[in-house]
Amino acid sequence: MAICYHQSSLKLSSSYPLPNLFIPKSQSQTLTLRCKNLSSVSSSSTTLVTEPEPIFTSVKSFAPATVANLGPCFDFLGCAVDGIGDFVTLRVDPQVHPGHIPISHIDGVGDSSKKLTKDPLLNCAGIAAIAVLKMLNVRSACLWAAASVLRMIAAAAAAVAVNEIFGGHLSVSDLVLAGLESESKVSGYHADNVAPAIMGGFVLIRSYDPLEFIQLKFPPNLEEKDLLFVLVNPEFEAPTKKMRAALPMQIPMRDHVWNCSQAGALVAAVLEGDLKGLGKALSSDRIVEPRRAPLIPGMEGVKKAAMEAGAFGCTISGAGPTLVAVTDDEEMGREIGDRMVEAFMEYGNLKASAMVKRLDRVGARLKKKKKKKKKKKKKK
Amino acid sequence: MAICYHQSSLKLSSSYPLPNLFIPKSQSQTLTLRCKNLSSVSSSSTTLVTEPEPIFTSVKSFAPATVANLGPCFDFLGCAVDGIGDFVTLRVDPQVHPGHIPISHIDGVGDSSKKLTKDPLLNCAGIAAIAVLKMLNVRSACLWAAASVLRMIAAAAAAVAVNEIFGGHLSVSDLVLAGLESESKVSGYHADNVAPAIMGGFVLIRSYDPLEFIQLKFPPNLEEKDLLFVLVNPEFEAPTKKMRAALPMQIPMRDHVWNCSQAGALVAAVLEGDLKGLGKALSSDRIVEPRRAPLIPGMEGVKKAAMEAGAFGCTISGAGPTLVAVTDDEEMGREIGDRMVEAFMEYGNLKASAMVKRLDRVGARLKKKKKKKKKKKKKK
Repeated sequence: MAICYHQSSLKLSSSYPLPNLFIPKSQSQTLTLRCKNLSSVSSSSTTLVTEPEPIFTSVKSFAPATVANLGPCFDFLGCAVDGIGDFVTLRVDPQVHPGHIPISHIDGVGDSSKKLTKDPLLNCAGIAAIAVLKMLNVRSACLWAAASVLRMIAAAAAAVAVNEIFGGHLSVSDLVLAGLESESKVSGYHADNVAPAIMGGFVLIRSYDPLEFIQLKFPPNLEEKDLLFVLVNPEFEAPTKKMRAALPMQIPMRDHVWNCSQAGALVAAVLEGDLKGLGKALSSDRIVEPRRAPLIPGMEGVKKAAMEAGAFGCTISGAGPTLVAVTDDEEMGREIGDRMVEAFMEYGNLKASAMVKRLDRVGARLKKKKKKKKKKKKKK
Repeated sequence: MAICYHQSSLKLSSSYPLPNLFIPKSQSQTLTLRCKNLSSVSSSSTTLVTEPEPIFTSVKSFAPATVANLGPCFDFLGCAVDGIGDFVTLRVDPQVHPGHIPISHIDGVGDSSKKLTKDPLLNCAGIAAIAVLKMLNVRSACLWAAASVLRMIAAAAAAVAVNEIFGGHLSVSDLVLAGLESESKVSGYHADNVAPAIMGGFVLIRSYDPLEFIQLKFPPNLEEKDLLFVLVNPEFEAPTKKMRAALPMQIPMRDHVWNCSQAGALVAAVLEGDLKGLGKALSSDRIVEPRRAPLIPGMEGVKKAAMEAGAFGCTISGAGPTLVAVTDDEEMGREIGDRMVEAFMEYGNLKASAMVKRLDRVGARLKKKKKKKKKKKKKK
């Protein structure tokens, strides 16, 4: 059954949502958020407005990277990939001045790390963290903070970290809303990265007002064949403005029907575990990819190389320049990756790196947690 | 798993496919095709080109009616509905002049029957019959014939009848191709009526060159809840030209993304047996329905009445004027139908009739068959 979550408090952005910007450039991002020790805040289950207290003194969360804009499923379907993503460490820290959640450091993102602000009010992880605190009704002044640029996945990790440190009261729907609040401030009002980062697997965003999404359950592996993504990342800064400007404002009816049918085929392939069908649908976009491909040097040759090496399909991941190919065999996945890297050099004169990743079926989760020591309670 | 059929011999029509025209106005259509007694044609399994001989002296086939243009799935997804459709009776008749397959009579289609030609070369059933004969490599001159206008489902019935009378050698893919040949000559090159009519259930047309379609398996009934279609047909001749002209040539990107996501949601709902989700997606078209609805008097009020009566969703069936609503309860289905009929009178000043139908999961099939008497064979 489809899992649908409704939240009526959202407002739809009035402008057309911008494309997703997630580019998996490095293996992990560690954001450290600190908040004031909240153990003094009383928790009461009898009042309508319950303010929870932290149950851990620190947590470390992980959110998997995502691949959005999946071919014909531009702007409404994304999936999470295993073994790559962002980490957020959150600590209860009595030294922190109330009203602040300073971000102590950001690391592991290579060149892009320099661009990430540590200002919690502007950093994507900070914005998501604050949104979760508001949802949890944590009123302590120290819990205001916030957000940044590329790495929206840190928002998912931060949302989960804050929720878990306070006992995990929120639903995934709430966490997606928190991530969406972050994404809307940083890159645009779309949830096709943050939803799969939080929930894992494939997630179809059905509507924003109310927010409603469907988790598409990819079947368990059959006959040792697994869905594998080959992610090839060229050393090339995608011209974001051009990538956005390349999107057509109007779509011919014929292309609309074609892409719609391919999107339907992709959804069917996911639900039925049809890897070849998934690859085929992924490769079939006639609207976005043809316009963005010329902006990625060598893209056409790289896609051709992927297909010739046996990939079931290949397209741009997110807004590029990373390309994603699909296969069912790890050895072949590495071969496809090698051919794509070579082709990036041959046709685009770009260095590139490849990795082969599985579908992440879990989504954002805690990796470490440190429990609070129990205080002796006075019996009434 | 998705079932995909490939046929590389097809050519894509160069113009944008016209909308589907099937309007379920009456319960059945009987076409009688006659062909020459073929028992004298020798059958040889040893030659490369095998010409089969008929194994029945007569057959009666049935093809279920279909609902196409399912909301956001305009022009690429249709389904078959049970207990309503077309019949074709086919007889081996030595009296018929070689080179002809006369259609003896067409009945049961009310006013529209007058418009259906008995000329087998122009009648949809005739064209499909001829296409099947060609595929079967039946070279007898008598087997050239047939086709007509509205009722494309007769083409499906005819294709199955001819195939079965010769022993059923063709695949469903071939039969769909035969139906498609008929449809392309009569109303346009699209298979979202003829494919579900032949295969039953929901069929997504993925491409035409090569022809490729995916049968979306709707799960068996759960907890006695079944997918029910409420079909409400007003006494109103839909202005076909206006219906076609109402289609936009260009789609705003925002509407394209919306409809694509709803199409994906509809496919997911079908595969997961999520009746509410199916209804919701059905109701969510922002491209075709808003433009065609004003051409059907009272449509807006009728849809509203359906939803208020508890329908999960409601949209135009095919190109109209029939409306289709979805529910999971037969009693409620009748109630929804009554409210829709009343609303057609109230808001559109139109008489209308309603019926509640289940999904046809089988597709076109033989209803009757009469076996040939075996001739005594001389032993060599």
